[in-house]
Amino acid sequence: MAQSLKAFTTGDIARALGLELQGDENTRIFRISSLHNAVSGSISFLVDKKKLELLTACKASALIVPAGLVGTRAFPAGISLLPSDNPYLSYAKLTQFIARSGSESGVVHPSAVIDPDASIADSASIGPGVVISADAVIAERVSVNAGAFVGVGASLGEGTTLHANATIHHDCIIGEDCEIHSGAVIGADGFGFAPAEGGWEKICQLGRVVIGNKVSVGACTSIDRGALDDTTIEDGVILDNQIQVAHNVVIGKNTAIAGCTGIAGSTSIGKNCRIGGAVSIVGHITICDDVLITANSFVTRSIKERGSYSSGVPLQDSTTWRKNAARLRKLDALSRDFEKLKSTIP
Amino acid sequence: MAQSLKAFTTGDIARALGLELQGDENTRIFRISSLHNAVSGSISFLVDKKKLELLTACKASALIVPAGLVGTRAFPAGISLLPSDNPYLSYAKLTQFIARSGSESGVVHPSAVIDPDASIADSASIGPGVVISADAVIAERVSVNAGAFVGVGASLGEGTTLHANATIHHDCIIGEDCEIHSGAVIGADGFGFAPAEGGWEKICQLGRVVIGNKVSVGACTSIDRGALDDTTIEDGVILDNQIQVAHNVVIGKNTAIAGCTGIAGSTSIGKNCRIGGAVSIVGHITICDDVLITANSFVTRSIKERGSYSSGVPLQDSTTWRKNAARLRKLDALSRDFEKLKSTIP
Amino acid sequence: MAQSLKAFTTGDIARALGLELQGDENTRIFRISSLHNAVSGSISFLVDKKKLELLTACKASALIVPAGLVGTRAFPAGISLLPSDNPYLSYAKLTQFIARSGSESGVVHPSAVIDPDASIADSASIGPGVVISADAVIAERVSVNAGAFVGVGASLGEGTTLHANATIHHDCIIGEDCEIHSGAVIGADGFGFAPAEGGWEKICQLGRVVIGNKVSVGACTSIDRGALDDTTIEDGVILDNQIQVAHNVVIGKNTAIAGCTGIAGSTSIGKNCRIGGAVSIVGHITICDDVLITANSFVTRSIKERGSYSSGVPLQDSTTWRKNAARLRKLDALSRDFEKLKSTIP
Repeated sequence: MAQSLKAFTTGDIARALGLELQGDENTRIFRISSLHNAVSGSISFLVDKKKLELLTACKASALIVPAGLVGTRAFPAGISLLPSDNPYLSYAKLTQFIARSGSESGVVHPSAVIDPDASIADSASIGPGVVISADAVIAERVSVNAGAFVGVGASLGEGTTLHANATIHHDCIIGEDCEIHSGAVIGADGFGFAPAEGGWEKICQLGRVVIGNKVSVGACTSIDRGALDDTTIEDGVILDNQIQVAHNVVIGKNTAIAGCTGIAGSTSIGKNCRIGGAVSIVGHITICDDVLITANSFVTRSIKERGSYSSGVPLQDSTTWRKNAARLRKLDALSRDFEKLKSTIP
Repeated sequence: MAQSLKAFTTGDIARALGLELQGDENTRIFRISSLHNAVSGSISFLVDKKKLELLTACKASALIVPAGLVGTRAFPAGISLLPSDNPYLSYAKLTQFIARSGSESGVVHPSAVIDPDASIADSASIGPGVVISADAVIAERVSVNAGAFVGVGASLGEGTTLHANATIHHDCIIGEDCEIHSGAVIGADGFGFAPAEGGWEKICQLGRVVIGNKVSVGACTSIDRGALDDTTIEDGVILDNQIQVAHNVVIGKNTAIAGCTGIAGSTSIGKNCRIGGAVSIVGHITICDDVLITANSFVTRSIKERGSYSSGVPLQDSTTWRKNAARLRKLDALSRDFEKLKSTIP
Repeated sequence: MAQSLKAFTTGDIARALGLELQGDENTRIFRISSLHNAVSGSISFLVDKKKLELLTACKASALIVPAGLVGTRAFPAGISLLPSDNPYLSYAKLTQFIARSGSESGVVHPSAVIDPDASIADSASIGPGVVISADAVIAERVSVNAGAFVGVGASLGEGTTLHANATIHHDCIIGEDCEIHSGAVIGADGFGFAPAEGGWEKICQLGRVVIGNKVSVGACTSIDRGALDDTTIEDGVILDNQIQVAHNVVIGKNTAIAGCTGIAGSTSIGKNCRIGGAVSIVGHITICDDVLITANSFVTRSIKERGSYSSGVPLQDSTTWRKNAARLRKLDALSRDFEKLKSTIP
């Protein structure tokens, strides 16, 4: 069983979510389930009206439903309803309510190595094997988990979580209520080298990474420090796993970026953008606010108008694709040939 | 020298591989080599009949050969032959025979931090700096290497190896005889957020990652825990490095996936698939059994028939490619223009 | 403020860079800035003559300029000039001069776990939580930072830095003056498996990774050990973050590779190549010296002539792209249709 929750009652849940309960407030709830997988003791949620048909067979004991739907149709007998103006958001808050199990705060594991010149707030918890360097500042309710590293002069704002084996380099600033997942590396050197006789000469990276509040950084994601100025991640940005953010990139407020995307140096991305997975974005360009880029796209120029952009090439069976790809290699010739032919026809 | 093996005799090797030896059983073998690089003291192997011509100059002291080949042609004088029905598999077993050098079992390094409520089998070995959390279960012959982290309630099945600095989060299940390489992160939170006024609201991820037996997970690969249900990797799956597996993905038995591939949330991949490197697979689709996807493809829809699929665009010199790419941006117009022209010609 | 430098004088800097100073040698410099961001107390640098116009408003106190430019035009009053034959290289050296702040050498943190059979030079510094295994060799002036792991028999040459939470597996050789960033994994097993009845049989990877001098390996980059022979990274190679280098790859001297690129097994890349970000390179091919591959390309064949190569598909608005992509799926049919039509026209 994926979840092993202690039991809550429908009444507990309604109060926690600030929703009005229609039904028995003493029904015990043991897990959150999709409509499809719900069993007795499950609470489920209906977001998409296309899934209304699943309701008939749904065995959930409680259901978060769009408020507008109540009264317009019959629900399974005995199910407790929690009408919500935003069922998906209520579901998010329900997961938070359930997941906030009591992690110990204010505990510093004796195996952690904390420099005497670091500042650790009383309610911060520091796991085993953690290393916190001189002049680092760890604010209240921060959790730094096993094996994580915090460099000299770095700071973590209130309520931020650093997961196991994450790395924060010197002087980087992480805001409040952020979550940095395992294997993430914040503030490694940007990729800066000057060509010199006989090889590459390193340009030491003197900037920082500055991350705002309520930012999420996924597992194995890397965000490099700036060359002279800072790499900047604004409030509310959410980054998935395996993302590369190069030096001096700026990512605007509340922008969401899916896994495996790479952003080259000095590129600036606006606010409220949604960038799909495995997108490549070249350096030194600007993407305006409210841009949507679909998965697997290649962004080579600045984007100056909000909207949706793409360049991913969809799959075909290999035989057909090979023929098409071979023709693509000659598309310019075909096009010129066509123009020529057209001009010969009256 | 890449390999520094203690010496085995041809007789030792024949017995270890269960093959019949044709030649001297006392020849000493110091390394495994490709046909091309073999020297005196090497054992080599012939898999591909296209490489038969290399035999003439081959200096190996012993050779694993296709059983059917023996007697059909002459081999270099003095070489010991090990005929096999499957030479490549025999080679694999030979590498295993040689690599199984005596790592200490049952040793727990004093610097490891092991919660008193964790269960560690007697023959498990736990390296320096390892952290094992409460209620974790470490089975017999498991090896957890330096700096690795095992979260609360996670379990590692018999004979599994966790390499240095790998991370297993709470409640995840790793089966028997698995190998999780360094930098891999199993069970970080899936990328789930609900849009809310003013930003993104986190959907806490309550599922687990459940991995079957004999699964290999490459370095720096991340597999996220499920949102409500589990992310599932079935028996015998092999995953290369730098792969991203999002929440609630299912990967079927014996499927192989090469490096840098990303799989978005809730996608289900069948059994015995072979997926090339740097493939992007969107979320919420299903790929059936026995599918081959070539490198650098972009999978946007479910695949319902076994077969080979592609969409990678092969390289050209930049000048030619730029012209073709510019035409590609107008391909729809060209196609319509062509239809129009065609219709005007009797 | 990104940088918080102790103050140097223009005279200090001129001497450190070996440049002749034109101006006051006692001007105090507090930071390096781009022309655009320079303030009083900044030193800046002019590399690109297209940026000459920025000089008029530039507030820097000192400026590194192309030697040929001095005397040909007026500079802001009071600015100290440092003429250089290669201003960008002088800038690189300036960052090094400033960044070389006194890290302690010869300090071994008491929490580090060092096998008694490892060899650690007197001037090497070993951070907290580091694990160094038996027979490892750590040369003079090496810095191994918090949580890093060095396997059995691995060696790090003089002046090399291993950043926090990096992993070097057994028997790998890292040369002198290298920098291995956090989360990098050197020497994990290559992805080698033989198909067998019932699943995949592991081919144990018996080679090593051998890295030359002055090599940089980015954060979260993985370089797998060879199957039988070694994976080889020659002197002066610079690798960005999130790169995957598979087993038995060879990367030639001074080649530079940008982030998120993947190189499959046994491929050999020449010297002085420049490979963009998010490039996929298939296995068992050879790329000659002096090749430039632009970002997001897919390399499927050997490259035998120096030059620039590409295959990335640039972005369009999604509606237009969808139409073009649909036509691309039928490009072979269109091409054949066109040939047919052309042949019917006299």
